[in-house]
Formats: sequence, structure tokens, C-alpha cells
Amino acid sequence: MNRLWEQLFCIDRECRRLEKAAAVLQWDQETNLPPGGIEERAEQIALLQSIWHRKFTDGETGRLLDRAEAEDASPLERDFCRVLRRNYDRAVKLPGELVRDAARAEGLSQAAWVEARRNNDFASFAPHLKAMIGFARAKAGCWGFEGPRTYDGLLDVYEPGLTAGETEALFTPLREGLTGLLQKIGRASPPEDAFLEWNYPVEDQVRFNRELMEGLGFDTRRGRLDTSAHPFTTSLGFDDIRITTRYDPNQVLSGIFSTIHESGHAFYELGFAPELRGTCLAEGASMAIHESQSRLWENVIGRSRPFWEFWLPRLKARFPGRLSETGPEAFYRAVNRVRPSLIRVEADEVTYALHIILRFELEKRLFAGTLQVEELPGAWRGLMREFFGLEPPTDADGVLQDVHWSMGSFGYFPSYALGNLYSLQFWGKLRRDLPEAETRIREGKFETIRQWLRENIYSRGCRPEPAELLRTVTGEKLSVAPFLEYIKDKYTELYGL
Amino acid sequence: MNRLWEQLFCIDRECRRLEKAAAVLQWDQETNLPPGGIEERAEQIALLQSIWHRKFTDGETGRLLDRAEAEDASPLERDFCRVLRRNYDRAVKLPGELVRDAARAEGLSQAAWVEARRNNDFASFAPHLKAMIGFARAKAGCWGFEGPRTYDGLLDVYEPGLTAGETEALFTPLREGLTGLLQKIGRASPPEDAFLEWNYPVEDQVRFNRELMEGLGFDTRRGRLDTSAHPFTTSLGFDDIRITTRYDPNQVLSGIFSTIHESGHAFYELGFAPELRGTCLAEGASMAIHESQSRLWENVIGRSRPFWEFWLPRLKARFPGRLSETGPEAFYRAVNRVRPSLIRVEADEVTYALHIILRFELEKRLFAGTLQVEELPGAWRGLMREFFGLEPPTDADGVLQDVHWSMGSFGYFPSYALGNLYSLQFWGKLRRDLPEAETRIREGKFETIRQWLRENIYSRGCRPEPAELLRTVTGEKLSVAPFLEYIKDKYTELYGL
Repeated sequence: MNRLWEQLFCIDRECRRLEKAAAVLQWDQETNLPPGGIEERAEQIALLQSIWHRKFTDGETGRLLDRAEAEDASPLERDFCRVLRRNYDRAVKLPGELVRDAARAEGLSQAAWVEARRNNDFASFAPHLKAMIGFARAKAGCWGFEGPRTYDGLLDVYEPGLTAGETEALFTPLREGLTGLLQKIGRASPPEDAFLEWNYPVEDQVRFNRELMEGLGFDTRRGRLDTSAHPFTTSLGFDDIRITTRYDPNQVLSGIFSTIHESGHAFYELGFAPELRGTCLAEGASMAIHESQSRLWENVIGRSRPFWEFWLPRLKARFPGRLSETGPEAFYRAVNRVRPSLIRVEADEVTYALHIILRFELEKRLFAGTLQVEELPGAWRGLMREFFGLEPPTDADGVLQDVHWSMGSFGYFPSYALGNLYSLQFWGKLRRDLPEAETRIREGKFETIRQWLRENIYSRGCRPEPAELLRTVTGEKLSVAPFLEYIKDKYTELYGL
Repeated sequence: MNRLWEQLFCIDRECRRLEKAAAVLQWDQETNLPPGGIEERAEQIALLQSIWHRKFTDGETGRLLDRAEAEDASPLERDFCRVLRRNYDRAVKLPGELVRDAARAEGLSQAAWVEARRNNDFASFAPHLKAMIGFARAKAGCWGFEGPRTYDGLLDVYEPGLTAGETEALFTPLREGLTGLLQKIGRASPPEDAFLEWNYPVEDQVRFNRELMEGLGFDTRRGRLDTSAHPFTTSLGFDDIRITTRYDPNQVLSGIFSTIHESGHAFYELGFAPELRGTCLAEGASMAIHESQSRLWENVIGRSRPFWEFWLPRLKARFPGRLSETGPEAFYRAVNRVRPSLIRVEADEVTYALHIILRFELEKRLFAGTLQVEELPGAWRGLMREFFGLEPPTDADGVLQDVHWSMGSFGYFPSYALGNLYSLQFWGKLRRDLPEAETRIREGKFETIRQWLRENIYSRGCRPEPAELLRTVTGEKLSVAPFLEYIKDKYTELYGL
């Protein structure tokens, strides 16, 4: 490797180390930080972000990139150059003060959200949310997305090139398909699931969730599971991937599906090829591709019949005396009970994407300026009635339920629903390649599946763009059909429609 | 405040934020880090240290300090200037590569120590220890301490101005006094203490230790308690002080006295006056003064009769069925059982300082070049025989027991024994000022004592030098006499000598 590439890789590596250091501080904030430490922590993170920003955009990176782009390069170097250029262009367009001010405000906003949610007090969170919207708008403006295109600029952060119009073109048939199915399900008789709301002591849930994550193949030498208000996955290093879950004694599935979901994210991060270590290529291809992995594990695998044939006996062993009357078929039906509900992260597969489309609608209006922050709780309740015929009794169960907006992550939500679409396209190919997949799941052996995912998706990091990744793996373009087909088949059988 | 001071405070504040950020990464390394993450973590910390070093020593600090020292200033500004100058001079004399290389090596060395101790494998740790000694020697050289003065340069880091000669002048009568007392105690009949080695389930120990730290007055809004291989206290922010302890099911006192010890450190850090926030004055006056606080709480308070009159019933309540035959007097005698032993942190008050003097002897020889790393396990065993008539069966219980050397903290150990001396001088004054102290301890009410310590010691941070602090509080100079008198009185009564 010549000197030019060495310098570029070195800048990238140091900048990523700074990002990971900031990520450690953020992880600690969400898992451990005593309440008194919040303001200083926000300052510490803001300082690291601003040092990162100055280091990355000091001119040297741009000059080296210009030279590197003009050189003959290996395929790996070309991909590296492409991704670093995108990251650099994105960073260099932001003024340093904006980076620092936004980072500081995000920390405080997130802490304010935790409090507001706990106290069901939207008003105390509203000024933070306004500030977050202001920062997002300012950043989109710096990136050249203004006026009606502002929201496109935010979507682009998570799914490069995606516009609100394209998202809508996918979400419209998705909403129609799901709403139609939901109406039919509403007329069918629901499975018994009261046993899921019995009391499952948190300490035993902790033990079961650890057993589960290790059983799925999570290597605890390279990561760990903790508890936080909102489950998340973060990379603190190539060999240090942290996931969190949360426990509710009367919602045993809440922790379980969070653990599976975040394990799916973690497998992606843990599966990058060794040659990507320390480079900007050691990232998911996009947020939607990342969510395709978490939701593949959570839903396609984790909510399947064979999965619970293996795991139900283990769950029973952790909670002696409970579930003794419940067989795998009954449990499978219960974990897939479809029911319009208030909370996105606890939604079933049929209603989940509707929660996303609701947030997408609100984000569009917020950034089009047709919805004000003060009107948001009302608009939320209105759409909940329209989509689900439900009204949240509190804002804590409504507009305050998600962490994303408090962190300024606008444009993120669509990734979840797009992830569902991607996941079924990847799954279709996986099943063609591995007809034994279902048997392996029934045996609790996930290595073959993880191996396929690693080879085809994880190991490549963000070397391919999302569309290219999908095309090279499946030969397809992003489509609603495979997901809708899977959902319709599964729930038609389940509900005898 | 004029512009000059504003700039200086700002540099100091940013540099301290970077130090705290690095401290978060270190805390996480010792409490949470998955084994695979160790090398990257060392790189991340080294990067932060080197950014800190560059920022702090870039010339601007020196120029501003020169100007500030020539100005009229308030007493606070003068103290700030004095401490910042000391920190700056110390930092600016170190080359950036040395700072970075040492930081990186420290992380790896500490991880290697954890493994070596677990596997009783000194040989695997020896190369790291050599590297640590090399870095310490190089740093001392940069600070102008070379050849026979090398070790003075290391002592000076922890106790400004202290030399090996002065330390020896204190340690010689200390050793004589303690050895004489130990011989007498050896001929007396020991108290019953078998009940301390019963099985105390770790989960209940965790609960008791939390109750204890909160009972002492630890504000969990400004800090927390976790578990690590070697208990420690670290400041991650003015309002975020973390302590750790460790649990052994058959050594219930091990966790308890670690928790009390580290709480003492934490009270110091939590007691700095608000006007010191974010400045270099928000530090202990010296490491020995810091240890005087941890050891005051651990020993003078925590190993006293009235303390256990209050806490024993609470301990019994956490472990139903255990200790039901044991009264406070018997428990008091048991926790103060004197016995030559292998492990420093579990040593009683009489033998503790002898463990320190042993380490001081070895450090002197290592830096005089009269002892090689390979010879260290043998030299350790030799001194253990000489001091205690004991030989550690393994290096894990011998030369590998402490974390300090693995982190390059040579010259630190004397602080513990000096802390004992300081603590009894402060305690003498506290008891003259607060004759009710013993009664308050018996009632489990520690606020009056913490208040006195805060006013007289904690709130001042490192504004006074250690000797000045001792003088202004007690009117005395550092002396062995009050400590020896306390020890002799306490154990003469306890053992009926």
C-alpha cells in the first residue's frame, strides 16, 4: 500500500476511534449514567464530536481524497474512497459550531425525553424537540436540501438517495395490503395469550435473555447485553458490540424480542470481514439494510414455529410452574397475535409497518412546516385513531414512546419498514440456498444461517450500496411483494382466513 | 473575570473534559469491556490522551500562564495558576509519542495483568511490567529525575515534593512500632472469626453494599457502585463519581471494606466546592490526602465499635439465619482480628502498612536497578518471609495481587500508609471539634462528620498543598505518632496486651 492510501486509512482510523470513544460515552449515558452527570456528559460528547469533525474536515482529508480518486486502485480501495468521500462531503458541509451545538443539545434532549416519558409530560420535552428539528433542518440545508426537499435530505442520511416520494410509493401499497389483512384478522377469533402477561420475575428474564442471545450465536467475548430505557445496538469497536434490552415483569416477550432484534443488528456488526477493520467500510450498507437483519432475526426467525419448538422448553425451564399447560403451537399462535396497539416496539408483524407509516406522515408534515411541535400530540392521536381506531391514554404511550426524535434522528423510522421489505427478499434467497434452514432453527442451530448471512451480507460491510447488495444477493429490486406475500400466507394460515 | 483568565479556564476545562472522557473509557474497561475489545480500547484511550496532551501543551497554555502569573489575581486565581502551572510543566516536558505509547501500553498491560493473575502466570506479565518500568523511568527522566533520583520523581507525582528519603524517615519508626505490636499480638489469643468465612451469597452482598454506601451518605444521583477485579474510584465528571468493589462469597468483609474505602474517596470528590467545578482545582490535595479519606472511613470509622453497633443488625437482616449468635462486640473483635496475611487489601490495620513498606522497598530497588523484573517474585517472597513469616503459595497471591504496577503507577503505594498517618491527625482534630462523633456513628448518622470533612478538607480541593492543608486544619506537621498511638491503644485494649 503506498503512502497516499496509508495516510487516508490512518485519518479514517483515527476519526473512527474518536467516534467509537464518543459512542462509549453515549452507551454509558443510556445504561449507567447517574442523573447528575447528564450535563457534563453532553459537554464531553460534544467536545469529542467537535474534535472528530475538525480532524476529519481539516482540508488534508479532502486533498488526499482528490488525489486518491485520480489513482488506479484496488476494488477495496475504490469502495473505501467512495464511502470516505460521502462521509467527508457530508461532514465538511457542516459548520463546526453546528456539530458541537447539536451534539450537546442531543445529549440533553435525550435525557429530557427519558424524564418526560416517565412523567408523561410532553410540554417539558417540546423545547428540546423544537431544537432537534431546528438542527436537523439546518443540517439538511447545509447538505443542499432546502424547502420542500428538507425531509429528503434527512432520509438520505439513513438510506442514501432515498426520497420521500419513493418511500411513499412503497408505503402506499404496503399500507393498503396490511390494512386489508388487518380488517380480516379483526373479524377472526384471536388466539389465547393471557399467559404472556403473567408475572415473569425480571431476574429470571435476565438469565433467559442471556441464554437466548448466546444460543443465537452471540459471541460474548466480542460484546455484551445490558439494560436501557430504549433497546439499542452500538459499536464501541470492531470487537466490542453492545446491545441492550429492557424488562417488564408482565411483558415477558418485550425483553425477548428486543434481545433477538438487537442480536440481529449485532450479528451484522460482528460479521464484517477482517480486512474492513478500522475503516469506514465496517458499517452496514444502510440503516434499512441494518434493520433488515434485526427484523429478519426478530420476526422471520424469532416469530416462527420451529423457533419456539426449540426455545419454549428452555423458557419453561427458566420459569418453573409457568406455561406448563402451553405447547409450542399455542405459544407460536400467542406470540403472533395480531392486535392494533399503542406501542411500536411491541407491535406484531401486521401492524408494525403501520406504526412506521404513521411516523413517516408526521415527519413529513413537521419538515414541510404544516405541523407544529405543539400540535404533535394531537396529530399523533388523530393518526392513531385513523390507522388503528385507538387513542393513547397518555403521551407516554403515544408521541413520547420512541427515543429517535429526542436524538434528532428524523428520517430514521422508514428504515424499519424498508428493512422488513429487504428482509423477506434476502430470506427468500436464503431459503432457496439453504432448504434446511427451518430444520436448523428447530434444532436451535443457527450457525448455517449466520454463515450464509455473513458471507452474503455482513462480511461486505458498506462496500456495496443497498440496491447493489440486494441485486447481487437476490437479483431483485426493492419490492413490497415478497413481504406482503409472507405476511398474507402466514396470517391467513394462523387465523384461518 | 477578564479575557486572559477566561481563556485559561477554558483551556483547563476542555482538557479536563478530555481526561474525563478517557476516564469513562477506562472505567468501562475495568467494569464491562468484553475481552475482545481490549486492544482497540487501548488505542482509543491512547488517542484521547494524546489529543489531550497536544491540546494542553500547544504553547498557548504556557504563554497565557506566563501572563497570568504576572498579573494581580484573586486567591482562587492564584491557586488555579499554581496548580495549572504544575500540571502544565509536568505535561509539556513529556514528548507526545511517550504519552501515547505509554497510554496504549498501560491498557494492554492492565488487561495482561488480569489474565496473568487469573492464571497465576507472572512470566506472561513480565514483559508488560518491564515496559511499564521503562515508561515510568522515561517520564521521570523528562521531569529531571535521573539515576538515583528516578524514584523521587515518581513519588513526586502522587505527593508533590516527597522524596524516598523522607518516606523512609517516616516508614522506619512506623515499621518498628507496628512490628513490635504485631509480635505482642501474636502471643495473645485471637478472637473468634470463623463466621466471617461462611457463605454469604453474592446477590445479597450486592444489596447490603448498596444499602451501606447510601447509609454512609453516598448520593446516587451523583455516582454509582459497580464491580471490578480491583476496587477503585474514578471521577467521570464533577457530578459523576464511580466506585467499584468486588465480592467473594466466602469473604463478606472484602466487599464491605472495599465499598467503605472507595466511598471515602468518593466523598472527597463529591465534596469539592461548586466554584472549583470544571477546573484543575477539583482534585484531591495529593494522593496521600485522598487515601487519608478512604482509610479514615474504612478503618477509623468502619472498623470501630459504634459503627458495627449500628450496621450489624442491618447485615444480619440481609442474611437471615446467619450471625444470629453474634453480637456487636464479637463482630467488632472479629473484623479487627490481626493476622499476618498475604493480601494487602484484606489486611488489618496493624499489618496493612507493612504491606506498603514491602512494596516501597521493592519499588526502590527496581528503580535503583538493583532488582530485575525476573527476580521480583523471589524478592517478594523473601520480604514476605521477613515481614510476616509467610510465603505466598502462588504469585497470584503474591507479586501479582495489585493492579498498580500494571498501570505504571509506581510511587503510588506509599500514599496508602501516609494516608493512614494523615487520617489520624485529621481525626484527632475532628473529635476535638465534634465530641459527639462517636454517638453519631452509633446512630448511623454520618452527616455531621461528612460536613466537617467537607468544610475542612473536601471543599478546598487541591487549593492547599498537603502540608498546608494539614497545618491549617490541625496545626501539625505530618507525623507517625498519632497513628501509632491510635493503633497501640485500640489493639492493646482489643487483645488485652
